[in-house]
Amino acid sequence: MSLVKAHDPVLLISEEGKRYLVFVQPDDSWYTNRGRLPYNDIIDQPYGRVAETHLGQKFLILRPTTSDLIQYLKRATQIVYPKDAARLVMELDLRDGKRIIEAGTGSGGLTLAFARAVAPSGHVYSYEVRPEHQRVARRNLEKLGLTPQVDLILRDAAEGFDQTDVDAVFLDAREAARYLPQAEAALTESGLFAALQPTVGQVSDVLRALEAGNFVEIRVEEILIRPWKPVPDRLRPADRMIAHTGYLIFARKIDARYRRFWMDKRDRKRAVQFGGKSKNIPPLKGGV
Amino acid sequence: MSLVKAHDPVLLISEEGKRYLVFVQPDDSWYTNRGRLPYNDIIDQPYGRVAETHLGQKFLILRPTTSDLIQYLKRATQIVYPKDAARLVMELDLRDGKRIIEAGTGSGGLTLAFARAVAPSGHVYSYEVRPEHQRVARRNLEKLGLTPQVDLILRDAAEGFDQTDVDAVFLDAREAARYLPQAEAALTESGLFAALQPTVGQVSDVLRALEAGNFVEIRVEEILIRPWKPVPDRLRPADRMIAHTGYLIFARKIDARYRRFWMDKRDRKRAVQFGGKSKNIPPLKGGV
Amino acid sequence: MSLVKAHDPVLLISEEGKRYLVFVQPDDSWYTNRGRLPYNDIIDQPYGRVAETHLGQKFLILRPTTSDLIQYLKRATQIVYPKDAARLVMELDLRDGKRIIEAGTGSGGLTLAFARAVAPSGHVYSYEVRPEHQRVARRNLEKLGLTPQVDLILRDAAEGFDQTDVDAVFLDAREAARYLPQAEAALTESGLFAALQPTVGQVSDVLRALEAGNFVEIRVEEILIRPWKPVPDRLRPADRMIAHTGYLIFARKIDARYRRFWMDKRDRKRAVQFGGKSKNIPPLKGGV
Amino acid sequence: MSLVKAHDPVLLISEEGKRYLVFVQPDDSWYTNRGRLPYNDIIDQPYGRVAETHLGQKFLILRPTTSDLIQYLKRATQIVYPKDAARLVMELDLRDGKRIIEAGTGSGGLTLAFARAVAPSGHVYSYEVRPEHQRVARRNLEKLGLTPQVDLILRDAAEGFDQTDVDAVFLDAREAARYLPQAEAALTESGLFAALQPTVGQVSDVLRALEAGNFVEIRVEEILIRPWKPVPDRLRPADRMIAHTGYLIFARKIDARYRRFWMDKRDRKRAVQFGGKSKNIPPLKGGV
Repeated sequence: MSLVKAHDPVLLISEEGKRYLVFVQPDDSWYTNRGRLPYNDIIDQPYGRVAETHLGQKFLILRPTTSDLIQYLKRATQIVYPKDAARLVMELDLRDGKRIIEAGTGSGGLTLAFARAVAPSGHVYSYEVRPEHQRVARRNLEKLGLTPQVDLILRDAAEGFDQTDVDAVFLDAREAARYLPQAEAALTESGLFAALQPTVGQVSDVLRALEAGNFVEIRVEEILIRPWKPVPDRLRPADRMIAHTGYLIFARKIDARYRRFWMDKRDRKRAVQFGGKSKNIPPLKGGV
Repeated sequence: MSLVKAHDPVLLISEEGKRYLVFVQPDDSWYTNRGRLPYNDIIDQPYGRVAETHLGQKFLILRPTTSDLIQYLKRATQIVYPKDAARLVMELDLRDGKRIIEAGTGSGGLTLAFARAVAPSGHVYSYEVRPEHQRVARRNLEKLGLTPQVDLILRDAAEGFDQTDVDAVFLDAREAARYLPQAEAALTESGLFAALQPTVGQVSDVLRALEAGNFVEIRVEEILIRPWKPVPDRLRPADRMIAHTGYLIFARKIDARYRRFWMDKRDRKRAVQFGGKSKNIPPLKGGV
Repeated sequence: MSLVKAHDPVLLISEEGKRYLVFVQPDDSWYTNRGRLPYNDIIDQPYGRVAETHLGQKFLILRPTTSDLIQYLKRATQIVYPKDAARLVMELDLRDGKRIIEAGTGSGGLTLAFARAVAPSGHVYSYEVRPEHQRVARRNLEKLGLTPQVDLILRDAAEGFDQTDVDAVFLDAREAARYLPQAEAALTESGLFAALQPTVGQVSDVLRALEAGNFVEIRVEEILIRPWKPVPDRLRPADRMIAHTGYLIFARKIDARYRRFWMDKRDRKRAVQFGGKSKNIPPLKGGV
Repeated sequence: MSLVKAHDPVLLISEEGKRYLVFVQPDDSWYTNRGRLPYNDIIDQPYGRVAETHLGQKFLILRPTTSDLIQYLKRATQIVYPKDAARLVMELDLRDGKRIIEAGTGSGGLTLAFARAVAPSGHVYSYEVRPEHQRVARRNLEKLGLTPQVDLILRDAAEGFDQTDVDAVFLDAREAARYLPQAEAALTESGLFAALQPTVGQVSDVLRALEAGNFVEIRVEEILIRPWKPVPDRLRPADRMIAHTGYLIFARKIDARYRRFWMDKRDRKRAVQFGGKSKNIPPLKGGV
């Protein structure tokens, strides 16, 4: 039996399907235009039940997933989509013990997904240049008890990162291409790089910066989630879907000597094709 | 500096881009038609370098990610795609401490992704009916040191699960719809359900079984990954892509009293629409 | 120089991008809540200019394409999407001289696309069971001067079609699978069949009916149009897109002797794979 | 009954599903490594039957559609995909009587689709700079009897087009952006422009050129066809699909005075948004 505990984040779903994310503080209440719901009515009660405001409005009480938190936490910036967060956690191999640098923090949506993935023994170093965004992120992470896993650093990524030998670097910034040397300096060999960029011009810029550095296994991709109408007898996709959030760019750092050697022998065009999907990986011939 | 340790899984990439996953056993060698590569040449060396067989064939040495392991581990069954694994880990909210039931184990590709996600304090209970599949999975999990996180159980899911109050249940079986009552019995309230099914007929079957149980927030979706050619000056999507792997079905268990009450008032068609995307969630009116 | 002629259909686009399809009748006016626009102000003027209502509201005047007509003509039924209409015209090989049966007519959106494609010497025989739909379609086709190319027939397709040896049959009806024998009877050998069906259950039904008849080259597909934001310096896809309109099913009729012979030798499962994409077309061995 | 006539194009499908496009010349034969098939065995016989080589190899005889011709005609250049051809014919409103300029001709795949769409009274003016491509296209069009509908002109589009007041211009050339002034000069007011470009950089270039001209209703899109496995009891999408062919860019020419006026008032960024999908079309306010 899974009980709501004091200070827990809780997902409330109205009869119309509207979602609200609240933190249940003892002796406090949730105020809505449909009435007041005292948190004490929920605390120590099981999840999966229905609670009622003093005006009789009913809400289903669910335990929010990381995906719910990403979507419904207070935001100062654009939403990160769970589909992209999930792919990043998997492809950056984030799990217990891993150390990752993130720039920028934004509202902390991805930071929390990363922090939970590397918990308990890993760490997220999250850089952000705008104090007002960092403030929102800090509050979100504090409420979720994730501060042990996260360092929030107020700095422009252009000035470099304090950490070295990190397992992964993720860039979610307008001019990500500018921070590639800093990302490379911070990464361990075989370390994983990723960036999320909304426009194709930014993708080209990041690719050029990756080519200039010691990166291989360069990949670009986009993720499309197609929702269906879950009606068994008239099964079909939904009418509309999200068509675009951003492009994901992945790469891995290798030892500079191998990359440099290889780059001397090969033209740049083929160099970048040292990516995952392509079969025509150029030879690393010669003394290594 | 990140060094290859004895018994580590290692990803070897040939000059043509072919990938090989090996476990580097001391004093043993990797034999390929392009020569012999003694593992002692790799052990205690940094990742991100190039090793050479006795015939001069070069291989880049990378640390395999969970995504690499899923794709390149020894398999007895069909591949699980990292895109689906990533989405499942996120939407089933798998993280340190969570307990999940999986049926069936297959070759253990998803099992390892789940085990790493819930490590160190969570657990995966993985059911499989075919001993030859379980054997392959067990060997894979042992080599990766994941046995502390996983119980492999040889049993038809139709006979029920031993665990109760688990946080999540995932069904990846031909007749997943048959195991819904067992899944519901094992789940905690507000617990998360998911299934992966390749055909639309199976999706309808699972949806009907979910409607018959105490589930809400029913969703069906498919994930498409569109790879791009990573050439900055001639940027464009790749020519071909994977068009289909399977449909993901998600749902959450709620307290039977609320579901039953609600089902009395509402027709089945609308019932199933108590899903995430839809706005027309039917009212839960009346004494609750 | 392209002039607006009396009775022409004209596309008016407001400054906010709203689209209106009107037929410019001499001495009449278009009334909008933004003022009155006398058609005589437009008639005999060139396309591609801006006209103004008596309240100063401006509208760009464009010549509507068939695609515009499909979208903005008066409708009694659900919209047909130009993407599906275009694919159907191409894959049903509709061009000057071809004869096609359509069931049902609906509001005539596809009928007009088909009629224009087979003009001037071809013909569309369009069946519809609901008189109120046929009325809307008839009015639309009359205004566009397409009645010479179209016969509108008020009848349930289950009762069969009057025409034989037609080049193509298209079914856009809820129970299309029921009308397959009638479609086959009307088609010439090598004739082209297509159906548009919104749900996967309907697709399976049509496939089963095709397997029971003398059809080969069976294909099912869906068309996705992904719109982009046309901003050159920040190029990226649009945020949202249409995720589903319907499934297109294509097939070709062959001589019954060859089909029957082949069906005796082969199981039904492989039979249906005698489709375009698959390489494993079963042999037609034996005396033919 | 539909009979094969001498000189007709015919689609032959082998028992393995391989497709061959031949023109059945009387007294000649089709030679394959599976035997000889005399065309006289096919001529005057109905379509939809099976013919046999002297070695007993069987082939199904179908009437090729325009879509088949585009795919299986002799090519000197890259394939045009029927999905793109269909969309272009619809969105460029090509039908009986329309006049269209095409650059370049390539192997004539699109030329034939356009020629059939505008037949019998319309015309295609197709420009090509490489004589060897024009030769292939001319032979294809001659065999199909389409020369009355097509002028093949050997010239670089940069030198301009001879026609004016055409209904549509289509550019399928590496540097399409360079030919926009020529396209605009040839188009009638309200005339339709389209281009097909494989890379995103080319799309940006064409968009910039459109913004510099008198074009509105600018749209960019990509078409994805998702094939399904046509097995009714195990219905599901195919495993793989074409992920990319090219981007389609559409626009309409308007009277220069309205465009210029509007451009003075509005910044370039918003100007380009005068596209089809967007609702925020900038006002055309002021004296017009």
